[in-house]
Parts: sequence; structure tokens; C-alpha cells
Amino acid sequence: MLKATMTADIFRDTVDALSALVTECRLHFSETEIWARAVDTANVAMIILTLKKEAFSQYESIPGEIGLDIAKLKNTYSMMGKSNEISLEHQEGANKIEVKFEGYHYSITLLDPNTIKKDPNLPNIQLPGQVTISGMELYNVIKSASIVSDKIWFSIEPENREFVLYAEGDSDNIKRSFSSGEVISSNWEKARSLFSIDYLKDMGRVMSHVEKINIDLGSNHPVKFSFEIAGGKGQVEYLLAPRIEAD
Amino acid sequence: MLKATMTADIFRDTVDALSALVTECRLHFSETEIWARAVDTANVAMIILTLKKEAFSQYESIPGEIGLDIAKLKNTYSMMGKSNEISLEHQEGANKIEVKFEGYHYSITLLDPNTIKKDPNLPNIQLPGQVTISGMELYNVIKSASIVSDKIWFSIEPENREFVLYAEGDSDNIKRSFSSGEVISSNWEKARSLFSIDYLKDMGRVMSHVEKINIDLGSNHPVKFSFEIAGGKGQVEYLLAPRIEAD
Amino acid sequence: MLKATMTADIFRDTVDALSALVTECRLHFSETEIWARAVDTANVAMIILTLKKEAFSQYESIPGEIGLDIAKLKNTYSMMGKSNEISLEHQEGANKIEVKFEGYHYSITLLDPNTIKKDPNLPNIQLPGQVTISGMELYNVIKSASIVSDKIWFSIEPENREFVLYAEGDSDNIKRSFSSGEVISSNWEKARSLFSIDYLKDMGRVMSHVEKINIDLGSNHPVKFSFEIAGGKGQVEYLLAPRIEAD
Repeated sequence: MLKATMTADIFRDTVDALSALVTECRLHFSETEIWARAVDTANVAMIILTLKKEAFSQYESIPGEIGLDIAKLKNTYSMMGKSNEISLEHQEGANKIEVKFEGYHYSITLLDPNTIKKDPNLPNIQLPGQVTISGMELYNVIKSASIVSDKIWFSIEPENREFVLYAEGDSDNIKRSFSSGEVISSNWEKARSLFSIDYLKDMGRVMSHVEKINIDLGSNHPVKFSFEIAGGKGQVEYLLAPRIEAD
Repeated sequence: MLKATMTADIFRDTVDALSALVTECRLHFSETEIWARAVDTANVAMIILTLKKEAFSQYESIPGEIGLDIAKLKNTYSMMGKSNEISLEHQEGANKIEVKFEGYHYSITLLDPNTIKKDPNLPNIQLPGQVTISGMELYNVIKSASIVSDKIWFSIEPENREFVLYAEGDSDNIKRSFSSGEVISSNWEKARSLFSIDYLKDMGRVMSHVEKINIDLGSNHPVKFSFEIAGGKGQVEYLLAPRIEAD
Repeated sequence: MLKATMTADIFRDTVDALSALVTECRLHFSETEIWARAVDTANVAMIILTLKKEAFSQYESIPGEIGLDIAKLKNTYSMMGKSNEISLEHQEGANKIEVKFEGYHYSITLLDPNTIKKDPNLPNIQLPGQVTISGMELYNVIKSASIVSDKIWFSIEPENREFVLYAEGDSDNIKRSFSSGEVISSNWEKARSLFSIDYLKDMGRVMSHVEKINIDLGSNHPVKFSFEIAGGKGQVEYLLAPRIEAD
């Protein structure tokens, strides 16, 4: 059982974060939080999302899990006009979730959680380098890089204290260097990995609205993007596997 | 013969109202008003539009009728920049209408009225229930309902003094209830009919700019939407035939 | 060798002006200016563009020419956010141009100038009539005329001191007359020529942002559009060959 009321903004941020990677997911809820952990179809990217009880204006729950069709939740965006509160209600044992806002009552049939890809295990990785930059800047570089290539290097260069994003095409290449003065915070440990721009674009669109994105980086290791939602009462982590240079 | 000058806004509202249902129509004019009455190709929806002499800044007419290609009138929209007056001139016997504004002179060949569908007779129907709501809210519900179905119930429920719009899909459904406090005016007589969302979308787009839409409703009867244009010096009525539940 | 720094606005205006006619061009540079002269693939339209040293905040050059892929320069538009300075650097003998702005370093391979259409000779023509109007108004008329035809007459009528643009379709026609009070300046010499709307649309989009467009016109002669860029420190001329009436 779940009864949760939140602002339309928090609802949209949460659904958008999930929607960048998956079209359906298991949503878990306990007395103190809701969370989801999912990987994309190709097992290349993972999202770990948590929203604490405090993120909601009303929250009541008996622990459980439900299967959600993310696209259907996005349908509500065009309906929510000036509305600023949205309620989700799921009765124990029912196969429906009721979405209510501003006179609207939208009843959505749930998916059977057993038909949805299992929750992934958390990978055990050490990522020594770390920088924090604005999501908008990150997204702009990703979009720009896609003009010359479908892959992009993320690189922390301790010698010149720079965070460098670099894409090399057949005839042209593009590089964006962030000096130490341009990053919000950092841990200048050498790290360099290559990633698919396709995945980064989807995640980047979500992150473009976020002020601070923490980027944890290793060498030929996954990258981890983490950021707050719901004014710090929720958290999103994206993990993306590296490409091999010879790809 | 017709010489009529009006604001660009009134011109656009008039043409848009017609364009939601028909691509061509007969325009009638007398010494005191212009009017059109037309049904769509499938005979499911009707428009009755009247614009009084007072809606125009200049008006001169010898009674007559002409055949108009609505799409050609819409061409002018992109031409009319800061312009706020538009003149229509039709000389007796000519097969042209001259549209003039801001240095522009657009000459459009008329259609032969005999090739256009005949004006429909006014149906004789009694619609007991009545509510008035904002056009924007009406249009939002119609768009939302289209997510789950291609049909929507309009229902006046005197017992709880609610006006309810309800669409039922295969797995999901959506309901928007307007409480008595949310409707501008009302006559709480029981009424319930089902309509095609396709037609409602086209009409709804036009009505979305209108503050007050009067909705007359019966049970398994047509619905009538009526609203003012030209600051009350013109009137539009849309009639839409009901769908049968087993459709 | 070329090192030139300019505002993003001047960069965009220059690239857009070229891009309306050609996808690649030779860029020439001397100690005092850069310039390009190019015709479109069908030899119907020509652009002559000059940007003086004074248009740049920094300018250093050893005379030379390079082959540019215009589309690649346009790629930078989406990257340049709040940026307001952009630098171009070309080393003598290198086959690359480096575009730098706001932490970005975009390296573009040049085209071999020998593979690009030769610079056209300047035609020797006398165009007696002349009017100056706003680029936005010019573009609006061109777009409007395209509704009824793919050709448009440009006509200076000294007898009524009018500048007339006129397009005649199979059934409809459209005319826009500019009275002497509506043109910024003029030389009322009789002139009348017919032009392709397709070409005018591409040029018109560029000119729509320009306050004053000088139009030089003859009878069955090319038209010349000229206007300033870079606050008067640069100049663009478009020449367009006439259509023959019987086309």
C-alpha cells in the first residue's frame, strides 16, 4: 500500500530520471522511502534512485513493490496545468495505481513485477577521480561532441588540473577543457575512460536541469554521475560502462 | 456585394471556427450580418456562425452568398504582421474576393456555391442539462482523455452536482470531475452522452481561447457548444452527434 | 596564416549570409580584410561578402585563401552558449582551422580550394532603380507570395512612386505595394524584373534580421540586395539573375 503526495516538479524530475534509461521498472516502497534500481536493455547503464519520505507532503506506506509503465506516468505531464500537487495511491493487492491532481483521476493498470527485468546488484568499483560541474555545461559538451563522433573521452588530468572531454572524428575533433577554476569541486586523481554518446545524451538531458553533477571517474572503468533531486531529499545515481578504445 | 472591415483577431477567430469542421463553405450576407451554417463531410458535426454588422468597423452589403475556400483565408495569417485591420471586398457578380491589409492585396478566386454541400437544416432537439466552463479547461481534458481512448463521456450528475468527463481505455481510464464551484454556471439536469474525441479535439482547439463555453447536454443526444466571438457581436454554435456505447 | 577573434554575433551573421547560397567556399584574407565571392550550384545567385579588419577584436594575417565547409562552421552555433567571443586560427600550410570559444577547441579539416568552384567575376550591370526597405518586411512578402506562385515581380513604378512586389498564381494573386512613405530611401527609376521565390526565400531569411536592405533593380536584369553586417564594418551583396516571363 502506498499513498504519496508530492509537487508536480518532484514527480516530473523522478519520472524523467527513470525514463532516460528504462520504459518500465519496479518501484519499491518502505515506511521511510521509495526507491528503484534498474539497468537498460543492453546492460550498459544503471540508475539508482531514492526519494525519502521527507520529499513528500503526505506519505503513508506498507512496504511493497509495484511494476510501473514509465511512459504512462509521463502522460500526466500534458494534463498538469497550473497544478502543483500530485497524489499516487496504490491499494494493497490491487493491480492499479491512481494518479490524482486538480480534479483529475487517472487510473493506470500496473505491470506484473515478475515480467520486469530483475533489480541489478550494486557493482563494487573504485573510482579515484572526481569533479563536480553544472549539468547544463555537461549536456552542452555531450551534444557538441556528437557532431564529430559517437564516443567521448572523459579525462581528469592532475598535471594541469583540468577536466577534459574529448571526441575524435574521422576528420574533425572537439575538445572542452574545464580548468580548476571552472569546476565546482574536484579530486585531481588521474582517470581516463571512453563512453558512448548515445547513452550520455539521454542522461545528459535529465542532468541539464541540475546545478551540480558529481562525476566519479576511473581509467577504463564506468563513470558515475550523482545528483540530488527534491531539494536534497532524493538522490539519483547513473552508472555507465566504458567503451573499449578499439571499438 | 460585400465590403467589410474588421480586426485581424475577429477575422482569425471566425476563420478558425469554420476551419475546425470544414475546408470550404457558403458565406451568406445581408444588410445586417454575415452567417454560415455547415456540416462536416461525415455529417457528424455542425457549425452555425453569425457575425453582426456591429462586429465590423465598416460594413456594406447587398444580400448574397459566396463559396469560400477556408484554407486560402488562413494563408493570410502568416502575412498579417502588426496589422490590425483586414478588409474583404466582393463585387456583385465577380468570382473573386479581395482581401486587403497593410499594403497587401490578396485576390482569391471563389468557389461555385452550387458545388458546396448544402446548408443543413437546424435540428430540433431538447437538451435539458447545461454547464459553462472555460474553453482551456475543456480542451485540456479532451487532450488528456485521448491518451486512453478515442471516445469520452460527458455527464451531468445532479446528485453530487458534478460535471464529469470520463474516458475508459482497455487498461487505463481517466476522469475529470468539475464540482459545482468549478463551473461558471449550470443547470443540474441529469444527462449523459458519449462522443468522438477526434471531433472534440478540432473544436476544442478553437474553444481553448474562449473564456466561457456553454455546454448543452442530453442523454444519448448531441452536445451543443456555444460561445461568443467578436466581443459578443458574433456567435458560434457547434453541434456534435453522440456515439453509441456499443460502438 | 589567419588569427581572428570576433563576437559570436558577427561570426553567425557572416556564416549565415554565405550558407544561404553555398555549402562550401573559398575564404580569402589579406592584412586588412577577409572576403568571399561565390555563386550557387546553378549559377543563378552570387554573394560578395567583405569583413574589414576593424570588425574583429583581434586580427593578424598573412595573405592567403582556405576552403571552408560552411555546414561545419554552423555546428558551433549550438555549442556557443553565453559565449560572446570566438577565435579562428589557421597556421600557414596546415589543412586545419581551429575554432575556439569558451573552453571549446573545435578542429576542422579544411577543403582543398582547388576542388571548390572558382570565384565568379563581378558582372558589369547598370541597375537604375533603387529602394531601401526593412529586411523583415521584404522577407514577409516573399513568404506570402510563395503561397500563390514560385515567381515574383519586383517593380519600381515612378508614376505613382510605388515599389510593388507581385505574384500571380493560376487562380489567385497577391500584391504588396510600398508607398513612397513606406520606403526608407529610393530612386524612382522605372524597373521591372521577375525572380524565383526559392532563391529569395533563402536570402530573405538572412536579410529578415537586417534593418535596411538596399535593392537595386533594372528591367529584365538581375536584382542586387546589399546590406551591412558587423555594425558597418562588413558588407554583403546578393545578386540574383532574373527569370524570363514565359518560364
